[in-house]
Amino acid sequence: PKVVVLPGDGVGPEVTRAAVAVLREVAPDVQIEEHAFGGAAIDAHGEPYPAQVREAVLASDAVLLGAIGGPKWDRHPRELRPETGLLALRASLGVYANLRPVRVFPGLEDKSPLRPEIARNVDVLIVRELLGGAYFDPRREINGDAAHNTIGYTRPEVERVARVAFWAAQQRRNKVTSVDKANVLEVSELWRETVTRVHDAEYASTALNHEYVDSAAMLLVTNPSRYDVIVTENLFGDILSDLAAVLPGSLGLMPSASLGDGPGLFEPIHGSAPDIAGKGIANPTGAILSVGMLLRHALKRPAVANRVDHAVTTALRTYPTRDLGGETGTEAFAERVIEALV
Amino acid sequence: PKVVVLPGDGVGPEVTRAAVAVLREVAPDVQIEEHAFGGAAIDAHGEPYPAQVREAVLASDAVLLGAIGGPKWDRHPRELRPETGLLALRASLGVYANLRPVRVFPGLEDKSPLRPEIARNVDVLIVRELLGGAYFDPRREINGDAAHNTIGYTRPEVERVARVAFWAAQQRRNKVTSVDKANVLEVSELWRETVTRVHDAEYASTALNHEYVDSAAMLLVTNPSRYDVIVTENLFGDILSDLAAVLPGSLGLMPSASLGDGPGLFEPIHGSAPDIAGKGIANPTGAILSVGMLLRHALKRPAVANRVDHAVTTALRTYPTRDLGGETGTEAFAERVIEALV
Ligand SMILES: CC(C)[C@H](C(=O)O)[C@@H](O)C(=O)O
Ligand SMILES: CC(C)[C@H](C(=O)O)[C@@H](O)C(=O)O
Repeated sequence: PKVVVLPGDGVGPEVTRAAVAVLREVAPDVQIEEHAFGGAAIDAHGEPYPAQVREAVLASDAVLLGAIGGPKWDRHPRELRPETGLLALRASLGVYANLRPVRVFPGLEDKSPLRPEIARNVDVLIVRELLGGAYFDPRREINGDAAHNTIGYTRPEVERVARVAFWAAQQRRNKVTSVDKANVLEVSELWRETVTRVHDAEYASTALNHEYVDSAAMLLVTNPSRYDVIVTENLFGDILSDLAAVLPGSLGLMPSASLGDGPGLFEPIHGSAPDIAGKGIANPTGAILSVGMLLRHALKRPAVANRVDHAVTTALRTYPTRDLGGETGTEAFAERVIEALV
Repeated sequence: PKVVVLPGDGVGPEVTRAAVAVLREVAPDVQIEEHAFGGAAIDAHGEPYPAQVREAVLASDAVLLGAIGGPKWDRHPRELRPETGLLALRASLGVYANLRPVRVFPGLEDKSPLRPEIARNVDVLIVRELLGGAYFDPRREINGDAAHNTIGYTRPEVERVARVAFWAAQQRRNKVTSVDKANVLEVSELWRETVTRVHDAEYASTALNHEYVDSAAMLLVTNPSRYDVIVTENLFGDILSDLAAVLPGSLGLMPSASLGDGPGLFEPIHGSAPDIAGKGIANPTGAILSVGMLLRHALKRPAVANRVDHAVTTALRTYPTRDLGGETGTEAFAERVIEALV
């Protein structure tokens, strides 16, 4: 199998290097190919997502991405920003379901901004619709004095991501919370009705409830243990998944998988963190756990994925990185993970 | 001066009764007129916002609202829901700026879901644009298989709420954070540019920074003390203000003011809480502090408003309500506030 690695910008290269070291260890048969992407590709090739990278990812079995962006490219016109490359990458791969598991690691409860008794029970998977809503909107418009963006969904777009959420819940605690703003938005009415139909027709044995997005934002903080799987539209998912991501105490800890019908995209949820880039201190846990998700979802090697997850949990307990108040550097942490593999 | 009281549904009547008791004490010259609104008006008059209520509020100096909604009306068609009445009330009053001050009260740090050392410094004012964006969208549409809502803003709509935010910051720590999603949405580009122009032309001495909504959701939880005034569009404001509202440990604590060019609308941020309605245990602090905001913003009696605020702080310390682990009931708490007035 072939994995395309896109290290990207900022701390992206160092965390993917650490993650690739683990991948090589547990899956030595995987062929790895690296390409510049995001700001790095703007610098090298004049565009964030060059055609040859597109060809490479489409011909791969999975894509491992580091992080993109940085102040250097922030004032570029929209077409020449790293973020635009990321959105185009998602679209070209057709990855409509973004999975972000968030949990507080045992022993790290005191790193959470929440009181430990609340933090202890955080174990939620956010399934964010990734290709619809306001993000890919043909009606978007700006003129001198007015602008608008349209949040649009079709029934099939909601159905496919709902199925991913129900399927994922069946591997977990079998409970889905669908988040919308159906008391105000028609698009949320369609969302709610469609999720309910998929549930009733195909996943009736999975628990389903609906919450408004404002209420979900509150409950994620006051009572996170009520959630197993949350499914929601693109913009709400952007906000809620980032909100959830801070609960474990460091953004460096969390992986993600973006899945569609072709190759999946796997990336830590943290950004490019320009302030600590190149220092060898970034926590590679999110990137390494993204390799775990890649092994599970793209390469269908759940046993190997479990080995990686367990080794990370062990290493975190014994060799905390800087963001967790420890001393272990990026590369050293990957070595500790490799040692902890059983 | 005339204040129209709309007790509304659920705990609305009991918390407004408590708040009105305080209002009568500190401003005995105020004339008070009560009307059914929301679910109560649907039951009594067949619509959530009857014409005679509209006439009354438009002829008033300020409106004090309790809370609206409940399971009883949830399955009604959209025109016959309490929420629709609330949106129509906001529109008819022209209240485009929703102010929600959130702070953790001294002595109540341990009620916050956040660790006390983070909770201690929460003192933020969220200014939410209340009449634009996806909420009042003429282009909204739903058909069998697709739906959309449009987030639209014009430059004057952004300017007027930005001015409120800058003005409010000047009474506080003189710092405004404008929240948008300008890396994805054109409407956010317009928002950011307009806020910046208002700043540069009229409030250059106030600090201004811009954050993405996903990042702001994280930072509100991990580092809330960075914020003085947050200004944002309607839907982002709905989410962020509810998120911020849980930080003090009980939704019962927080007031709000919605301001425009005519009479303002003042209401606690908590909902109708049907589960505890009629038991006399709801915390009236949010409603009483809303009376404080009414005295300050509508009746221009800042000294009286300060007296109310101080009395509430004192009463909370000594006579906590049920939601705070104490025993004080709704009416009794209002009496304790009145006793604590100096
Ligand atoms: C960079 C930005 C376009 C992106 C998004 O909003 O999707 C990011 O916030 C994310 O969540 O991956
Ligand atoms: C009830 C609902 C329409 C309302 C809103 O979204 O504005 C509420 O959530 C609020 O924040 O006051």
